[in-house]
Amino acid sequence: MIVLTFSCPDKKGIVAAVSKILFENGANIIESNQYSTNSGDNPHFFMRIVFETESLRGLRNINKKLSEFSSVFNAEFKLTDTSVKKKAAVFVSKEDHCLYELLWQKSSGDLFFDVICIVSNHNILQSVAESYGIPFIYAPYRDNRARQEEFIKKEFKRLNLEIDFVILAKYMRVLSEDFINSFCRKIINIHHSFLPSFPGAKPYVQAYQKGVKLVGATAHFVNEKLDDGPIIEQDIIRISHGDDISEIKRKGKIVEKLVLAKAVKFFTEDRILEYDNKTIIFE
Amino acid sequence: MIVLTFSCPDKKGIVAAVSKILFENGANIIESNQYSTNSGDNPHFFMRIVFETESLRGLRNINKKLSEFSSVFNAEFKLTDTSVKKKAAVFVSKEDHCLYELLWQKSSGDLFFDVICIVSNHNILQSVAESYGIPFIYAPYRDNRARQEEFIKKEFKRLNLEIDFVILAKYMRVLSEDFINSFCRKIINIHHSFLPSFPGAKPYVQAYQKGVKLVGATAHFVNEKLDDGPIIEQDIIRISHGDDISEIKRKGKIVEKLVLAKAVKFFTEDRILEYDNKTIIFE
Amino acid sequence: MIVLTFSCPDKKGIVAAVSKILFENGANIIESNQYSTNSGDNPHFFMRIVFETESLRGLRNINKKLSEFSSVFNAEFKLTDTSVKKKAAVFVSKEDHCLYELLWQKSSGDLFFDVICIVSNHNILQSVAESYGIPFIYAPYRDNRARQEEFIKKEFKRLNLEIDFVILAKYMRVLSEDFINSFCRKIINIHHSFLPSFPGAKPYVQAYQKGVKLVGATAHFVNEKLDDGPIIEQDIIRISHGDDISEIKRKGKIVEKLVLAKAVKFFTEDRILEYDNKTIIFE
Amino acid sequence: MIVLTFSCPDKKGIVAAVSKILFENGANIIESNQYSTNSGDNPHFFMRIVFETESLRGLRNINKKLSEFSSVFNAEFKLTDTSVKKKAAVFVSKEDHCLYELLWQKSSGDLFFDVICIVSNHNILQSVAESYGIPFIYAPYRDNRARQEEFIKKEFKRLNLEIDFVILAKYMRVLSEDFINSFCRKIINIHHSFLPSFPGAKPYVQAYQKGVKLVGATAHFVNEKLDDGPIIEQDIIRISHGDDISEIKRKGKIVEKLVLAKAVKFFTEDRILEYDNKTIIFE
Repeated sequence: MIVLTFSCPDKKGIVAAVSKILFENGANIIESNQYSTNSGDNPHFFMRIVFETESLRGLRNINKKLSEFSSVFNAEFKLTDTSVKKKAAVFVSKEDHCLYELLWQKSSGDLFFDVICIVSNHNILQSVAESYGIPFIYAPYRDNRARQEEFIKKEFKRLNLEIDFVILAKYMRVLSEDFINSFCRKIINIHHSFLPSFPGAKPYVQAYQKGVKLVGATAHFVNEKLDDGPIIEQDIIRISHGDDISEIKRKGKIVEKLVLAKAVKFFTEDRILEYDNKTIIFE
Repeated sequence: MIVLTFSCPDKKGIVAAVSKILFENGANIIESNQYSTNSGDNPHFFMRIVFETESLRGLRNINKKLSEFSSVFNAEFKLTDTSVKKKAAVFVSKEDHCLYELLWQKSSGDLFFDVICIVSNHNILQSVAESYGIPFIYAPYRDNRARQEEFIKKEFKRLNLEIDFVILAKYMRVLSEDFINSFCRKIINIHHSFLPSFPGAKPYVQAYQKGVKLVGATAHFVNEKLDDGPIIEQDIIRISHGDDISEIKRKGKIVEKLVLAKAVKFFTEDRILEYDNKTIIFE
Repeated sequence: MIVLTFSCPDKKGIVAAVSKILFENGANIIESNQYSTNSGDNPHFFMRIVFETESLRGLRNINKKLSEFSSVFNAEFKLTDTSVKKKAAVFVSKEDHCLYELLWQKSSGDLFFDVICIVSNHNILQSVAESYGIPFIYAPYRDNRARQEEFIKKEFKRLNLEIDFVILAKYMRVLSEDFINSFCRKIINIHHSFLPSFPGAKPYVQAYQKGVKLVGATAHFVNEKLDDGPIIEQDIIRISHGDDISEIKRKGKIVEKLVLAKAVKFFTEDRILEYDNKTIIFE
Repeated sequence: MIVLTFSCPDKKGIVAAVSKILFENGANIIESNQYSTNSGDNPHFFMRIVFETESLRGLRNINKKLSEFSSVFNAEFKLTDTSVKKKAAVFVSKEDHCLYELLWQKSSGDLFFDVICIVSNHNILQSVAESYGIPFIYAPYRDNRARQEEFIKKEFKRLNLEIDFVILAKYMRVLSEDFINSFCRKIINIHHSFLPSFPGAKPYVQAYQKGVKLVGATAHFVNEKLDDGPIIEQDIIRISHGDDISEIKRKGKIVEKLVLAKAVKFFTEDRILEYDNKTIIFE
């Protein structure tokens, strides 16, 4: 099946036009979602359509017609084949729970993507990578981020890795603006707080000291500002006065791994559109 | 705005055909959702579209074209004007929390519908009805359901009430199959358990005796089988061993009123389609 | 029944000592909770005990013995008769949902306290107060907080109100440090965000602009710093990209009223102890 | 630290008596919870106390005094050293998610217990057992339960396993009453529905056909009646009309593994008391 994601300034007749293109080229719509921002002067339109095609020729024609249509309507669109796995580089540090959840959901078929390498600034999780037969890139130079990132990029090249997106599965290190920009593909991070509460370091300690009654986790795309990219998914878990910091961490880890896995699911199924530093999620 | 709900046996090109009808008659699609059951041999298609029209003539034409289309595709459809309030008869017994929640959400603008009468087999909540200026029908003959229901139907006629749907807001009495059928409009009930657990009488006592860790509430359409109609909405709340039956009831009431209000919201906004004794909810 | 709340620097034998005092004076312990902060150098101990007594003399003796004990152990304690309703002044502005929830839970017996006056800087909710037979204090001078608060305090005196605690049920105005201090009793506020996210004005607008996937509400004690007092209770509700600000507000109001009611329940049942700008809640 | 769990017919002075015994033998109470069933004619009292002791002699004396006390008060009590890991036999079938969650929470220190063998009626998960260095018992005779259970018991003996409790981590087979009784230690099962809804086979299919809006999981002790033992923990996850059976299973698995892990946590920390086919959980 093919997923079409599509967005443009809102105008009358877009749905009719796009579904006509699909229909006339033998596509069968399985699922479809639209959304339009009504607020403000410039409403914007978003759409995700899942369809089947009978022939490659039909698909090529759809692509051509949508390209023509898009240049007129100032639209952006993407066609993705759901049978092709997206390839992820997973960055970790010392903690394993997010990595294990991703690997387990992957192997059980709940997440459909490939982990083509695991990158870490520690070698603690090397054995996990090896037991799954995944290349492990240990990045030294912990005291020199520029050198470290340079090393990682070289390893990507040396191993000839074609990375579709990066998952920061508790990497615990801020990537340089340069790395983010030069890398230029999607980076999903899990932050262990309910953003915008407690950005930056040690959110659970902050949560404990503040005396909140719930702690949360936030999966978001990474941009050049720390913990400020478009939010993909959030969830929380109840804590009580009786929970000390280690118990808060323990409860939080459960939420972290589930929120990250859900964000990866949305991404790998092309359910996320971005606009105005926010996300539209077609669940 | 107009809401179109539409369902038919699934075939290729339905979305294209319907959106073409809308577009050619000057409609602007604001929101749209589709769903198709893939399971089994006979996939069925469901759609809800919200659109604006420029003229009444355009709308009339849309209705005409959809009728033609529907007879060919064996479809059912409905066009509803969102500016027209649906009219509800609310049935209550002694408890007031569901009634109050509905009235409050109505008066605050969160629910958009009219309560045109309150029916009860007790007169305890008569003063509530009066303080809101709503006709109150006290139905006597508690020991004779047939006479009681006859009385209610006569009162509906006498007061010249045009009822679009009925809300059983803790009516605590089973309506006769005859009443349900003869009445022939939609009836929404709130049952104070997580169905299919604990149908029938005293669900909280059953829940207490069973020692469950969560209690729930279920809003559903009423059919001729007790507590077995299509489920519209459910939610739960955590209880503990320390909660006795009265505390379970207290916690449960919070869930009951919110679940019922949510079901009424779905219904009044034409978000519910029914199929195979289940509901499709386009949220 | 009597509720004993008790806290002191943690030492061995406190539970044994206190329960001995209760036992020797004919008390029967119904429910009991303890908690001790283990973190840091100075562990602190907290306890809540519900007990029955046979005689007033027994209770007086318990009070005497606990006083002696407390001066030795540097403890604070309080004995409260659960059959005596606490008296609240409820401050509101234009919105009614929190007020209605409190009044409904009160009248249904789920909350056990008295609302002895409703204070507002608008007269919109005067009719609600009147329909419940509760004195309504309309506080003019909206442009002069000092005069306004002076007026309120005078009205309290004039009406001879003995207020045990204040509930800010969406008062939408910051009380002066002077009022908070001079008033010197407990003030519970509901803030419509998941603090510490979005303190101050228009949290739902902030939440919308940030693109969070959950919005929350926080009930807290008021101190001299804005939205920074000890948190009593928090909860959240899921929102989506499709919810505009008015829909976020609508969903948020449901959480606000339930969180505030829960905090009031904890307070009226003497389940809250404070320490280090945080709360211990014995549920 | 030592955990005391204690229950008896409710009488005045129990807390005072027990805490006196602890205090006089040098124990320092860290945490304490009590609960008394008030309903009915025969209130029953439950208590869990965590304490430190200075000497083994003190602990022995506490044990002796509690024994004397218990024979008078008709009480049951248990003293457990929290530094000793309980030993579990984990029964699995084909699915791995519950097993992986237990092993991960164990290795991360969130669960404190030992898995001393993994039993299965399939050999699919043998490699998981081996990679963790845990003895794997493959039980043949799938068509003959009596022979199969006999085989398992012999293997337990042959391997000289001292099992404290059994975890049925999606074993998908009903144990014989004989096995349950002869085995005589605690058995925790995870059932993939919100009991008492959908007991027995294929609960997710039942849930799908019924059209419920939430699916759940239930961890419970096993007794001789199918899916009817005391419930330890339950939780739910929201599903929608769009989720087919495989998606419901996928979502359900997340809840299953978390609910089971939570029940195991309660059990290993001696937080569960049983009474009247229900559980008291001192969280």
